Amino acid sequence: MLVQRKLSLECNGLVGKKVLLKGWVERTRTHGKVAFFDFRDRSGITQVTAHEDLAPKIAELSLQDVVEVEGEVRSRDEKYINPEIETGKIEVHLEKLTIISKAAEMPFDMGGKELNLELPTLLDYRSLTLRHSKIAPIFKVQEVIIDSFRKSLKNKDFTEFQAPVITPQTAEGGSEVFEVKYFGEKAFLAQSPQFYKQILVGVYERVFAVNKTLRAEPSVTTRHLTEITTLDAEFGFIDSWTELMDMAEYVIKTILEDVERECKKVLDLYKTSIPKVSYPIPRIKLREAQEIIFKRTGRDVRQEPDLAPDDEREICKWSFSEKDSELIFITHYPVEKRPFYTLEDPSDPGYTLSFDLLGRGTEWMTGSQRINKHDILIKKAQERGINIKKSELYLQAFRYGMPPEGGFSFGSERIVMGVLDLANIREASLFPRDMERIDQRFSVQSNVSSKK
Amino acid sequence: MLVQRKLSLECNGLVGKKVLLKGWVERTRTHGKVAFFDFRDRSGITQVTAHEDLAPKIAELSLQDVVEVEGEVRSRDEKYINPEIETGKIEVHLEKLTIISKAAEMPFDMGGKELNLELPTLLDYRSLTLRHSKIAPIFKVQEVIIDSFRKSLKNKDFTEFQAPVITPQTAEGGSEVFEVKYFGEKAFLAQSPQFYKQILVGVYERVFAVNKTLRAEPSVTTRHLTEITTLDAEFGFIDSWTELMDMAEYVIKTILEDVERECKKVLDLYKTSIPKVSYPIPRIKLREAQEIIFKRTGRDVRQEPDLAPDDEREICKWSFSEKDSELIFITHYPVEKRPFYTLEDPSDPGYTLSFDLLGRGTEWMTGSQRINKHDILIKKAQERGINIKKSELYLQAFRYGMPPEGGFSFGSERIVMGVLDLANIREASLFPRDMERIDQRFSVQSNVSSKK
Repeated sequence: MLVQRKLSLECNGLVGKKVLLKGWVERTRTHGKVAFFDFRDRSGITQVTAHEDLAPKIAELSLQDVVEVEGEVRSRDEKYINPEIETGKIEVHLEKLTIISKAAEMPFDMGGKELNLELPTLLDYRSLTLRHSKIAPIFKVQEVIIDSFRKSLKNKDFTEFQAPVITPQTAEGGSEVFEVKYFGEKAFLAQSPQFYKQILVGVYERVFAVNKTLRAEPSVTTRHLTEITTLDAEFGFIDSWTELMDMAEYVIKTILEDVERECKKVLDLYKTSIPKVSYPIPRIKLREAQEIIFKRTGRDVRQEPDLAPDDEREICKWSFSEKDSELIFITHYPVEKRPFYTLEDPSDPGYTLSFDLLGRGTEWMTGSQRINKHDILIKKAQERGINIKKSELYLQAFRYGMPPEGGFSFGSERIVMGVLDLANIREASLFPRDMERIDQRFSVQSNVSSKK
Repeated sequence: MLVQRKLSLECNGLVGKKVLLKGWVERTRTHGKVAFFDFRDRSGITQVTAHEDLAPKIAELSLQDVVEVEGEVRSRDEKYINPEIETGKIEVHLEKLTIISKAAEMPFDMGGKELNLELPTLLDYRSLTLRHSKIAPIFKVQEVIIDSFRKSLKNKDFTEFQAPVITPQTAEGGSEVFEVKYFGEKAFLAQSPQFYKQILVGVYERVFAVNKTLRAEPSVTTRHLTEITTLDAEFGFIDSWTELMDMAEYVIKTILEDVERECKKVLDLYKTSIPKVSYPIPRIKLREAQEIIFKRTGRDVRQEPDLAPDDEREICKWSFSEKDSELIFITHYPVEKRPFYTLEDPSDPGYTLSFDLLGRGTEWMTGSQRINKHDILIKKAQERGINIKKSELYLQAFRYGMPPEGGFSFGSERIVMGVLDLANIREASLFPRDMERIDQRFSVQSNVSSKK
């Protein structure tokens, strides 16, 4: 018996050798007396071929059965070479097949190259659908994006920190916040690591965090989830707020380059490529964007304090056609639309030194320079009804010397969605949460009585 | 005027040159007509020296003022060389001093090399105390530990994933869980990414996650927090449960080696070194540990289902003196003390294929082989009162083919506490949360009326 397990992809270098493989049955088919199945392990897919007496064993296999395969690696005939898989020039000639764990019958077709399911089904069977060869690689892209974010900022001398999830109050002062019962006290789930990353500028100057952030989004859209993974950075001793955009631009450039290099196969699978970007990324004020939208569409949004989804799509179209860039910075959002800690532009009163990065029609990132003077910060917080007592640690950081600083926050799911051109952000989250669903839809649960 | 900011540490290579530094005032002192201050930026400390007319300016400085320093880098006389700091052979001769942000008066002595504060004060002023040269480096150690965890597992072909914080129910089935108001439904904060990492074994075979996990610890101890950063790993296709311990051993060995190499200065600061470990790390059954404790102390805990803190300390002492290892694995906890998904040892009924790693008297990690058969898993879950309906995604993963698998979970704060020999886990968390405190102590808040 063969003891040492080999991976599917290793078989390429083992022609003529006996191998032991362990993995899942991905797809089966028969041609007369010969039966085949696509075998999957973490390295990819390999074809296993069974002749004569072993062929019936393959007919008995269920998709997703966990199996051990013993066999000999053989070169395929020229005409059977499959360029679509990495092991397309070889196959494993089956000698022994053992089922380690038997799978139940598939609730839908999992054997195709596409998985054509409605979103609710895709999510109701998430543990199964994640295994599909079109779904699993999405989160390899997220992994590359997050790694790249970390790497890019470490290269610039940033320190990674772990931000709290449970907070005494919301940093934004808004209402879309989840409340937690905390030993008889009220606490809230972090909508962002904002206060903590600013505090840590006083300690490490340059910090970043990869966090779960939670927002009680009261509507179901294709662009919002209640739980997302945000990529936050903050740094001090800036001479100008434009340094913040320069840093964000460097970060997203690094991310896109890494995705292009490391996720080539996934991009091909989704028949897309990374966004086309001109560097420096175009930077226009919100009011300029609104003028452009008015001129192009006749839709007059010039009095609006923010861009609506239609506006974001329109200005991205303009940027792509006029500036050759699918990414664009929109700057100078009005004071009232931004959190209390955002610095007003002294040369453009009423507007802030803030910026959003839009990509392919959606917001990917938001950022700004912050107020670093303790007295002004207190005044602005009070004007917005922020609980000063509960913000003591935050305000403390500014009471004891804080340099000019700012930062930004990317939504990792938005970047995944953007680079793969996914239609719905739920596809870009392993276990998406919204007001209707945590793993299972609430309605389903309440309709079916529990046997417990 | 100098435009290009230099870092403190860069001054070592700039003797005779004019520099512009930006940072904080860490410490001040005067010697007759000469005044000094220790200047801090993210790279470290540098001494700034002011003669004659500039000396009075230093007397006006407050600790933690944010300043710009222009001056000339000079070599120190042999007798003034300070071996304790990396820039100890140079100093910056002050030519111009600008205060960028004035700090309020310190509430306690922040100018010493030690910060001798009671824990409540240390935490009440966390944004300030984190800046102290004895405190800030603790979280550089945490950063190294987390990086090392990721690196070690990536080297073994693991995929990093983002685990949910909001869950439909608790994986452990216990009561120490925080409840969240979720659009009129009840949800819970993740006590661990357990279900999700197991699900993903079906997708990627080998996964890990760095998560915030939340436990409603109802008591205040030196070893527990309500919010911690756990380092979780899970992998499939194991031939024996001992492979799980082998992997955990490889991970902690890598972490300790990285801490020793990259955190030498912090270890010196805390007058400690990484734990002494013999590899392979000793592995004994819980019952053997209890016998040893009985023999050594006369304390009979042989009927207990788990080790109490005193027992953990005692067995670590034994391991250090008898096995030359400050780390030890304890295995085979009884079925009833472990979560429902833990696999029972077929050759030792009543006891599980589970293990804890103890280090320097405290638990650092816990792990086990899991049940991978769907029918047995359902049965065990029902016996423990787990809500089957709300665990649908989890059970799905096993219904559709799951290999033999298992995993482990480290508490990053426990490792930090262990390697630096800290007395209280609160020192190992940036913003520690317990039943008495989220940033500020609750009692303080309720005693002082809010002005809002």
